[in-house]
Amino acid sequence: MLGIAGDSAAGKTTLTRGLVQALGTERSTSMCVDDYHRYDRRERRELPFTPLHPDCNYVEIMEQHLRLLATGSPILKPVYDHSGGELTRPVLVEPHEFVLVEGLLPLHTKLSRACFDVTVYLGPPEDVRAAWKIQRDTAKRGYRAEQVKAELGRREPESARFIRPQRDLADIVISFAPIEGRDDPPGTPLSATILMRPTIRHPNFTEILAKAPTKAMHLALKRDTDGRPVDALHIHGHAPPEESTMVAKAIWEGLDVPDPLPDCLGRLDDGRRNEPLRLAQLILLHHLIRDGD
Amino acid sequence: MLGIAGDSAAGKTTLTRGLVQALGTERSTSMCVDDYHRYDRRERRELPFTPLHPDCNYVEIMEQHLRLLATGSPILKPVYDHSGGELTRPVLVEPHEFVLVEGLLPLHTKLSRACFDVTVYLGPPEDVRAAWKIQRDTAKRGYRAEQVKAELGRREPESARFIRPQRDLADIVISFAPIEGRDDPPGTPLSATILMRPTIRHPNFTEILAKAPTKAMHLALKRDTDGRPVDALHIHGHAPPEESTMVAKAIWEGLDVPDPLPDCLGRLDDGRRNEPLRLAQLILLHHLIRDGD
Repeated sequence: MLGIAGDSAAGKTTLTRGLVQALGTERSTSMCVDDYHRYDRRERRELPFTPLHPDCNYVEIMEQHLRLLATGSPILKPVYDHSGGELTRPVLVEPHEFVLVEGLLPLHTKLSRACFDVTVYLGPPEDVRAAWKIQRDTAKRGYRAEQVKAELGRREPESARFIRPQRDLADIVISFAPIEGRDDPPGTPLSATILMRPTIRHPNFTEILAKAPTKAMHLALKRDTDGRPVDALHIHGHAPPEESTMVAKAIWEGLDVPDPLPDCLGRLDDGRRNEPLRLAQLILLHHLIRDGD
Repeated sequence: MLGIAGDSAAGKTTLTRGLVQALGTERSTSMCVDDYHRYDRRERRELPFTPLHPDCNYVEIMEQHLRLLATGSPILKPVYDHSGGELTRPVLVEPHEFVLVEGLLPLHTKLSRACFDVTVYLGPPEDVRAAWKIQRDTAKRGYRAEQVKAELGRREPESARFIRPQRDLADIVISFAPIEGRDDPPGTPLSATILMRPTIRHPNFTEILAKAPTKAMHLALKRDTDGRPVDALHIHGHAPPEESTMVAKAIWEGLDVPDPLPDCLGRLDDGRRNEPLRLAQLILLHHLIRDGD
């Protein structure tokens, strides 16, 4: 069971979609815990907090449902319809072999974290996320750009208080961003930094990069912002795709799956492939498939 | 935790309402398991079964939610809106000291029955129930009388197969009906037969009726339809209310509650009091309040 936390428009759905496609819908169950919103959009207008606030969500029911899924039981999951901002009829969710859970607050409580085998925090720099949110909410949720910007400002205190603290609680922290200091031309694929905390056993990148040496990425031993040791994998978006494909294949082969490397990995919403996204998904697949080895 | 099963329009809501009012909404939680319908009214038109069929309900989720309530956990309960026949947004239900559950199928499975301390089957004769259903569904659910009659016919095989078998599984069987063979004038309050199975300890009516002798009711030791011994309390609707009030007070005093006998007991939808209903509710209150003594 995998938990992916991150702020609104951090890329959670894109990351999850590729994983579900690679695992197959018969073997995987995915759900978004933002469906546990306690109030609909109209009701929230009267309330002093945003959907990021735990009090705006049925956190206790979220915990209960995660525990039920983790122990193999079905749940009747509430549904929040983002297009209309309404709470609608619930749906039956049955846990398959792999359960992928994403949302704003899946790692907020100790009880919810205890349900996951692997936890991820998806945290692009705030300017990157703001651009993504404006693009998505104007295209898909019927807002104007100024409305989205105002909403980002209104949400910032609760982002800082409830969403971003989940970064410290995750086994893996993924951040897609341009590389600072480089003057890449527009359209250069985003790079990524993947922090792998030694809270769980990650793929051995020292070994992988020795087998498939490449300039597309490098591994660095670092101290995280809180001083804890962490492996930081820097994946360069500007590198030729062939270079990271070799590493992708090396990780995939380590999974001992008979099928070839799935084509669905690394796909962005527009269908293009982003190599750092593919690497991030492969690391998560490693944890899902090799878990228990 | 009390479970009341019975067919559509058997009087479950009326029975439950008086209990909730007597216990107080701060101490009691009531819910209807018909909210666990899997399909809305429109979807059911395409389906070969009626809402009485277990396959038309999320039975496994009902069991899960009853178990959660029985162990003191809140649930996010689905909602079926009878007026429009639609499934709408779920609601949070938190279990208070007393949990009262009524519906078509609360006693259908062993797991659901295991959640209840007391189980009731409400089974008026079919002609009485048909009259109640026609009256309610034309007044409150927007149907015409012929539609209700046709629906009763369509439901009969599933009533026989899934609803009525719950009668044998209940600790208490309550049936409101005119007394056979008597030629009471129209408007005579309905009588009731309350079967008390020795599966749980009931109020000692031999003692109560010795203390408060009355012609308003009599207790008979019988064999049930399946041959099992059962106490049958026959309460006569035609008797003067003062007579059964004495018995009602005697049961109430046995509960050691400081307040006087609540006025809300025995109330029908039109506000009139039915003495047999009041007695039935007092027996259930006995089980709820004295449970564990």
